[in-house]
Amino acid sequence: MTKTFSGNFFEDFRVGQTIRHATPRTVTTGDVALYNGLFGARFAVQSSDAFAKSIGYPQSPIDDLLVFHIVFGKTVPDISLNAVANLGYANFRFLAPVYPGDTLNAVSEVIGLKENSNRKTGIVFVRSVGYKADGTQVLEYVRWVMVHKRDAAAPSPGEHIPRLPTALDVNLLGDACPPIDSGAYDNVLAGSPYRFGDYNVGEKIDHIDGVTVEEAEHQIATRLYQNTARIHFNQFNEGQGRFGRRLVYGGHVISLARALSFNGLGNAFHVAAINGGRHVAPLFAGNTVFAWSEILAKAELPRRNDVGALRVRTIATKDKPCNDFPLKNGEEDDPAVILDLDYWVLIPR
Amino acid sequence: MTKTFSGNFFEDFRVGQTIRHATPRTVTTGDVALYNGLFGARFAVQSSDAFAKSIGYPQSPIDDLLVFHIVFGKTVPDISLNAVANLGYANFRFLAPVYPGDTLNAVSEVIGLKENSNRKTGIVFVRSVGYKADGTQVLEYVRWVMVHKRDAAAPSPGEHIPRLPTALDVNLLGDACPPIDSGAYDNVLAGSPYRFGDYNVGEKIDHIDGVTVEEAEHQIATRLYQNTARIHFNQFNEGQGRFGRRLVYGGHVISLARALSFNGLGNAFHVAAINGGRHVAPLFAGNTVFAWSEILAKAELPRRNDVGALRVRTIATKDKPCNDFPLKNGEEDDPAVILDLDYWVLIPR
Amino acid sequence: MTKTFSGNFFEDFRVGQTIRHATPRTVTTGDVALYNGLFGARFAVQSSDAFAKSIGYPQSPIDDLLVFHIVFGKTVPDISLNAVANLGYANFRFLAPVYPGDTLNAVSEVIGLKENSNRKTGIVFVRSVGYKADGTQVLEYVRWVMVHKRDAAAPSPGEHIPRLPTALDVNLLGDACPPIDSGAYDNVLAGSPYRFGDYNVGEKIDHIDGVTVEEAEHQIATRLYQNTARIHFNQFNEGQGRFGRRLVYGGHVISLARALSFNGLGNAFHVAAINGGRHVAPLFAGNTVFAWSEILAKAELPRRNDVGALRVRTIATKDKPCNDFPLKNGEEDDPAVILDLDYWVLIPR
Repeated sequence: MTKTFSGNFFEDFRVGQTIRHATPRTVTTGDVALYNGLFGARFAVQSSDAFAKSIGYPQSPIDDLLVFHIVFGKTVPDISLNAVANLGYANFRFLAPVYPGDTLNAVSEVIGLKENSNRKTGIVFVRSVGYKADGTQVLEYVRWVMVHKRDAAAPSPGEHIPRLPTALDVNLLGDACPPIDSGAYDNVLAGSPYRFGDYNVGEKIDHIDGVTVEEAEHQIATRLYQNTARIHFNQFNEGQGRFGRRLVYGGHVISLARALSFNGLGNAFHVAAINGGRHVAPLFAGNTVFAWSEILAKAELPRRNDVGALRVRTIATKDKPCNDFPLKNGEEDDPAVILDLDYWVLIPR
Repeated sequence: MTKTFSGNFFEDFRVGQTIRHATPRTVTTGDVALYNGLFGARFAVQSSDAFAKSIGYPQSPIDDLLVFHIVFGKTVPDISLNAVANLGYANFRFLAPVYPGDTLNAVSEVIGLKENSNRKTGIVFVRSVGYKADGTQVLEYVRWVMVHKRDAAAPSPGEHIPRLPTALDVNLLGDACPPIDSGAYDNVLAGSPYRFGDYNVGEKIDHIDGVTVEEAEHQIATRLYQNTARIHFNQFNEGQGRFGRRLVYGGHVISLARALSFNGLGNAFHVAAINGGRHVAPLFAGNTVFAWSEILAKAELPRRNDVGALRVRTIATKDKPCNDFPLKNGEEDDPAVILDLDYWVLIPR
Repeated sequence: MTKTFSGNFFEDFRVGQTIRHATPRTVTTGDVALYNGLFGARFAVQSSDAFAKSIGYPQSPIDDLLVFHIVFGKTVPDISLNAVANLGYANFRFLAPVYPGDTLNAVSEVIGLKENSNRKTGIVFVRSVGYKADGTQVLEYVRWVMVHKRDAAAPSPGEHIPRLPTALDVNLLGDACPPIDSGAYDNVLAGSPYRFGDYNVGEKIDHIDGVTVEEAEHQIATRLYQNTARIHFNQFNEGQGRFGRRLVYGGHVISLARALSFNGLGNAFHVAAINGGRHVAPLFAGNTVFAWSEILAKAELPRRNDVGALRVRTIATKDKPCNDFPLKNGEEDDPAVILDLDYWVLIPR
């Protein structure tokens, strides 16, 4: 009887099951520095304590996506160590700001199960919550993932498909952004003259720059989150596997695209929610990532005059600049597209 | 007369000589973050201030091996810049916990010398001590290393071979672990259900996962420790040298194996002592490291009911999974084995 | 009308123009750790709070070159995104120590312009100042850079060439170094027995060691500074460009050479000023960097007995050891030389 944990398989899950995840993690300015070195984010609120204080934060908050990656990383050993593919997200929103010194924990509830017809795999729906040591919830999201069965002959653990919204209601946004003094928000220091009123629905923005990913970079990032998914780290195994090489963590692409989006969305300092997303194709070291965005919608927040919400669709590509906004190739996905992300950002009014 | 220091040669050492090492180093949460990004450690005590406090620590201590690497790094310019090989360790134990903000220093005493029969090299035995700015000793170990002579014709600086134990007595363990509240220790958050009583002598554990090492990763790690050993950094020279390429610092393998060992030894949160170790073969960038462990012994600590000690032998391999516990190939070492480490860990009872 | 910023072109600048740069940046011990991991600096004052305090600092200051890189990085989007080449520096001096927790900002004034005869490019001279959130100036320098015109037919924005000194007057040095207790400065802990009085004008020092640069390393470093110059990050574009590959940020070479210079200049703990510098040839990942230095001058500082100033010329090479102090090959630069830097360091008397 081995003491090594090989992760859960499809038939190990039950609807209603609650899973408390290991390893609690105190987030520090050290994590922030390393995240900056890996992605080069330039949003002023997260970069400068002085700037953050000038608009009403007690100090710079931790980058939203770093919070996500850490919470997500905790769920991997229990939820997706035996995953075939990460299929989707819904109801994904940030609930409270996180600051250096806060300790993050994660818990998941299994809210749906569906065995696939081949009986070799099934889909697991979990609602995961990240929370601080004092219980404050900082993030919640639903994720569904295709997981191997240990034994194809094992009976299905049940079938229940939860109803999930395609987008977050604007009334649910903003809990992780304290009231800010938008008059004190300095556009020049922030690096962009454009605020809520300057964006138009349907507007497309080419973020221009490209960044080439190295093996050391994505491995360091993914380990920083204590994400243990094997496919990112083990060339010996992956060299004999599906792609012949290590796969870059999908969240790495999201963070790269977010950092690139600064050029054109520099004042959109807070990711409030993610409506949905799709990893359209895999990314490997050596590829160069580009991105473009479209403004899908604009919304005022109830009882808030300080910030407004932009619903943004950001497309990331590999080895293809985005000056012509690549997306489809006839009916098919453009083969250069690797990410299609639909999310809400907050931006000063 | 150059001001550059080229390190000591065998004939420069004298038994009884004390060497205070440069450079004092304040350890910070920044070092912790980078160490985490490089190795992906998941032990809850070192990862979460909240968890550490819940069992009686004032905050998360610095990872034991990070303390070791920093202390070791200080000794390199004086002891092993002209080393042929690092031969062994003994009497290696941690003496006090280290916290962010502590400044580490190192001092070594030469306790043995033995010229080799070829007269070109000799073995230097040093007892090195790491201590804080206030004088608190945090780590001591004996290390012996084969060092070049500057001049084969130089007389031997004397011969004295110290007597060294093959393992640390269990009575000497635990000084670096404060009394903990093992009842408050949360197995689920820690990521493992297994405590002291659950391990059996002779038990073998395959740690399953593998991790591929990149040049940037081992260079960043080794520089973080201010370890100046040239063979790790200089492809121009090493390209013409023994291996044709840069050699990964042996301590890097130890940290990789320790991080991998979490899967199966997740509650063994503290390395109390190292009985001995051998770098069986060199590691290079591009190799994938695997590891397995055997429980060599179990011991209760005198006057402590909170934690027990496991004596563990961890074997690391390159480019070979450890499901069949590779070690020997007939009389020879299995050519995949790179590390054979014998050490004591503490684990809650 | 796109919201993406493509940087200024030569005809966008005006003499007398003031440019406040985005993104304010709080410097932390996390940045220090990552900088250490990337360069392996060993100067005791910057490495140990205890050491720094023992000589009169309130704590370890941030490495001077890290301050420079961060300030420089802020100027890139506005000044040099469309640069052909960085041509030179003058009047470059550090004005106040920077500590973890300080927030850095930058502002530049255009002090000179000169269109080139081909009318496709011009030279922009800017005086850039780095300052803390409370207004304290920490660094100033003049830099001139060749910038593309958007439109060769555009009229020149004027011509004015500022007069610039070839070296900083010694009376202007030392503002960023508080009075230190040179008696309390411990040579052994600092790692060098040589002080101000031990260096001679004309003395040459081979710093011996070499360090190979990896793509991940220079990318992480350059992003840490939020430097957005495209040529460092985008293999897709650069693969079709001038060099066929990504170019390492010139400041990376300066930091590598400074770290290497510890071996021979270990007590020269503070870079007080840079008289001038030239990136003689480009550096690429895979190259190994070596360095040597010559003492150009020595000077006492007015009203200070604690430290003296050495004017140092440091030459960095790629793939060529510096034991014979490579510099010229007849009339030409030695093709291995990549950096020729003339600067003032302070060292205890």
